[in-house]
Amino acid sequence: MADSSEIDFTVRPIGRVQSPLTSTADAPRQGDEGAPDAYLILDPEVHVGLDGIAAGDEIVLLTWLHKADRSVLRVHPRGDLSRPEAGVFSTRASSRPNPIGLHRVRVLDIDGHRLHVSSLEAIDGTPIVDVKPVLGAIDER
Amino acid sequence: MADSSEIDFTVRPIGRVQSPLTSTADAPRQGDEGAPDAYLILDPEVHVGLDGIAAGDEIVLLTWLHKADRSVLRVHPRGDLSRPEAGVFSTRASSRPNPIGLHRVRVLDIDGHRLHVSSLEAIDGTPIVDVKPVLGAIDER
Repeated sequence: MADSSEIDFTVRPIGRVQSPLTSTADAPRQGDEGAPDAYLILDPEVHVGLDGIAAGDEIVLLTWLHKADRSVLRVHPRGDLSRPEAGVFSTRASSRPNPIGLHRVRVLDIDGHRLHVSSLEAIDGTPIVDVKPVLGAIDER
Repeated sequence: MADSSEIDFTVRPIGRVQSPLTSTADAPRQGDEGAPDAYLILDPEVHVGLDGIAAGDEIVLLTWLHKADRSVLRVHPRGDLSRPEAGVFSTRASSRPNPIGLHRVRVLDIDGHRLHVSSLEAIDGTPIVDVKPVLGAIDER
């Protein structure tokens, strides 16, 4: 079979994270490990796509972790050198071939195309790629 | 603020889905709505990144939904015309600006760079973008 990377795709960010976190060195590893609240600033062109999202909703935010090293395939889990190296796909390391961040956050407030969300570990300026609802039970979809 | 899409990123697929589903018209809307088991065929170059994944693990699979219409910002949820239109970011519609599929599946078996997984609604040939572990409790990470 041919190499799958022969056909590439272009991610066009739809907004940016606004956060007090300015460096990955200061950022918690996951949102529930002490991450601050942050703002998602969506581009005006995609504003209409937010219709149906309300304060209190839990959402899945997808970002592009633009500081990641895409050549990395093995890491010490959680950067802990006492742990043996493992494949990146068995970890949540940000460095990986396609560094897409996956963040489950709660919407605290929504003001036009600006969403205030809880506990986000992505740093200031991180490109936003997608927003999805958390899936409920089958009969609630 | 400048339009966030001024800086684009390139997704380079790391493999493909092999599935009996050949058309999006036949595919269930979510994996837990009757989707078949499938294979994830990873490219040999990223094989080492799978180290640490074992049969029985739950993983989060990210795909690029290559049949999606990226211009869509509003949809009838679940394609149900009796439901009012909503913004795509409040739905799991595949058509959206960056059509990244998010699938929680269980690894049934692993054979080199070929993973057999349960209940996947992505169709045959869907590009694989990333694989992540499902996060456990904080003290198990």
